[in-house]
Amino acid sequence: MTLQRHDCRALDQTDPLAALKTQFDLPPGVIYLDGNSLGVLPRATATRVQQVIQQEWGQDLIKSWNTAGWIDLPERIGNKIGRLLGAAPGQTLVADSTSLNLYKVLSAALSLQQARDGARKVIVSERSNFPTDLYIAASLAAQFGARLQLVDSPEEIAPLLNNELAVLMLTQVNYRSGYLHDMAAMTQAAHAAGALMVWDLAHSAGAIPVDLNAADADFAIGCGYKYLNGGPGAPAFVWVHARWIESCRQPLAGWMGHASPFQFTTDYAPAPGIRRFACGTPALLSLAALECGVDTLLAAEPLGGMAALRQKSVALTELFIALTEARCGELGVRLASPRDAAQRGSQVCLSLAAPLEHASYAVVQALIERGVIGDFRAGDPARLEAVPHILRFGFTPLYLSFTEVFDAVEHLYQVLKQQEWQAPRFAAKGKVT
Amino acid sequence: MTLQRHDCRALDQTDPLAALKTQFDLPPGVIYLDGNSLGVLPRATATRVQQVIQQEWGQDLIKSWNTAGWIDLPERIGNKIGRLLGAAPGQTLVADSTSLNLYKVLSAALSLQQARDGARKVIVSERSNFPTDLYIAASLAAQFGARLQLVDSPEEIAPLLNNELAVLMLTQVNYRSGYLHDMAAMTQAAHAAGALMVWDLAHSAGAIPVDLNAADADFAIGCGYKYLNGGPGAPAFVWVHARWIESCRQPLAGWMGHASPFQFTTDYAPAPGIRRFACGTPALLSLAALECGVDTLLAAEPLGGMAALRQKSVALTELFIALTEARCGELGVRLASPRDAAQRGSQVCLSLAAPLEHASYAVVQALIERGVIGDFRAGDPARLEAVPHILRFGFTPLYLSFTEVFDAVEHLYQVLKQQEWQAPRFAAKGKVT
Repeated sequence: MTLQRHDCRALDQTDPLAALKTQFDLPPGVIYLDGNSLGVLPRATATRVQQVIQQEWGQDLIKSWNTAGWIDLPERIGNKIGRLLGAAPGQTLVADSTSLNLYKVLSAALSLQQARDGARKVIVSERSNFPTDLYIAASLAAQFGARLQLVDSPEEIAPLLNNELAVLMLTQVNYRSGYLHDMAAMTQAAHAAGALMVWDLAHSAGAIPVDLNAADADFAIGCGYKYLNGGPGAPAFVWVHARWIESCRQPLAGWMGHASPFQFTTDYAPAPGIRRFACGTPALLSLAALECGVDTLLAAEPLGGMAALRQKSVALTELFIALTEARCGELGVRLASPRDAAQRGSQVCLSLAAPLEHASYAVVQALIERGVIGDFRAGDPARLEAVPHILRFGFTPLYLSFTEVFDAVEHLYQVLKQQEWQAPRFAAKGKVT
Repeated sequence: MTLQRHDCRALDQTDPLAALKTQFDLPPGVIYLDGNSLGVLPRATATRVQQVIQQEWGQDLIKSWNTAGWIDLPERIGNKIGRLLGAAPGQTLVADSTSLNLYKVLSAALSLQQARDGARKVIVSERSNFPTDLYIAASLAAQFGARLQLVDSPEEIAPLLNNELAVLMLTQVNYRSGYLHDMAAMTQAAHAAGALMVWDLAHSAGAIPVDLNAADADFAIGCGYKYLNGGPGAPAFVWVHARWIESCRQPLAGWMGHASPFQFTTDYAPAPGIRRFACGTPALLSLAALECGVDTLLAAEPLGGMAALRQKSVALTELFIALTEARCGELGVRLASPRDAAQRGSQVCLSLAAPLEHASYAVVQALIERGVIGDFRAGDPARLEAVPHILRFGFTPLYLSFTEVFDAVEHLYQVLKQQEWQAPRFAAKGKVT
């Protein structure tokens, strides 16, 4: 039988991670289930960014590149993120955006393959991958005379692991469904076929335990503004396996990736190590905010780190699924994420069965009005059965309680039971964002 | 005869732009001649960034993409910058870094030329260009099977304006010497040869009047953290002429440059207009700070705008040159920037004659200790005659007074006359930044 609210309160009272919530400034009355889109504000961020603005920029000006360590921030924060990813120090760098970092690593991977075996001309990815990854891959495929081949399900990947495959490029946790790839197994399969493996960790970093070195991945990139709580548009990160870092080249060869940027030499010489994946001058204010976000995850290290966070995340998503099905199943709510927690990231997606399939957007809006913030992702109008409209909910164990999960389901029940979503103010207007 | 300090004070008292200085928070006791490296902090910035952090991010969270207009910021600030550049609304976008934007526009220009005339395979630029421009150009030259040809003086460009030239890529104001190209004449010459013209405006935007449309330029990019006062690592900008914008493609094809980013479609379709030059999610905190910086320049519009700022800039640099030569000429100080103001941006560089040529770094450090902040740029050790070590001084009319210029020269005189620079604490230690 499913839990009652007092059971959830009891779980919260014995939750060893509960105190981590005090690191954040959450708006009152909000149950925030959208940390997979934009992480919440850490309490430390405002003060830290003010310090950068008022003291480091305003008073110390240009010398802060040295005295405040600005020049080292991309590597320093990269190393902190690396602790969440099974990376060794010096393997992870903060730079630019996720899209740009993907361009760098995918280009580097294709160049390596071109040099090793020019016949490998295929990039395989999933049609359900986050679109920017596909756009970047298509751009590079055109540039390299390669072909981007998309599959519609993970099972279709195995037959494509052949001697034409240059790079397998996957997002570990799907942004829509929350489907979680087995990083080690998939990487091993790619390598067995002679391909290189590129991982997008946008929905993994800070959400699930990742061990890039244990999985023997080749390249990885990810996002700073989701589970890492780095703030809107926070800089992204890039990781490269030690076996490639000194031999690979990336085309966005800006001065910050140069071996000696302040020698101002005419010819490009890549920096040793991961710094060669830097390009231009980093956006310092956003960079400083990112560090505060990453620190909120490192604060969990004495409590068990990502393993403990994952344990709570699974418990939260299991609870959400159980409560939703018990309470809202008869109202047409269906699970649209993997039921097996081992195949699911830190999110749960729901869809609505006919005749409610077009109510999803309005239901999400009605929930938001009630203070339960999730988001809507449109399905494929041509094949709603296969790709339904979804209600997407992220579960961040750093600041989410079991009681909030209970209350969120109760709100969903009310929205559906009382047909609140039918109010005209919840109808989609213009561009859906 | 040269001016005295009381003459400078009189100039300040009648300076119609003097009040613009109240827009900034400058550290006490500092004469800041490094606004061409990192612009100073506008008073409005701290409050604005706090608003973004505490309210827009912290309280309003994900909905700020719509309610706070985050999604429109790159175009809104781009249009403000465009007012300084002779751009029409919709032609300028804020995005990424200068290096990345150069990659986009140079790639777009080379693609256009490839489609028009595959025989054009040469990119011409100056060896003295800011290195990141050369690194990016070299990277793209390799990708396009093109050749990057560098000249050692502007006079060497004319013979290269032939039917092999694909793109002429110049930085309008040289980062070392301050040499100022005639944008209209150079663009016309490039076009007459069938080439496309790419301008780097890193040391132009906010420093000198620019009219990209009048000059008929093809592509332009520039920096947000120098004369635009956008803060350390502020996002950069990109401009494209209307005749190319709907036909050109850039390879950093991230979702923010998609026609409908929130449709999450599998195939890339570039946004209409300049937004196709966006890539990933912009760094919002740094973006918000940039707007405050740009606003400090727009505040000069009722006072004559860039034309008035340029007039004061020329007066400041002329005064600095005259005073330096009168006061410090006998101490070995030489002008290393063009003497003709029409060929000089908003900066003045000095070099030191033998036997002082290696004292430049220490002199800059001694000046900084006295509160006069300029910077040092190393020469070419193999040919110091042609490329000397330089003392570089930027003159920002928004916040610099004539009296400060007078005092700066007096400090330079004292540093040299009293040989303060010989103190061991001013010796170069390790990496020169």
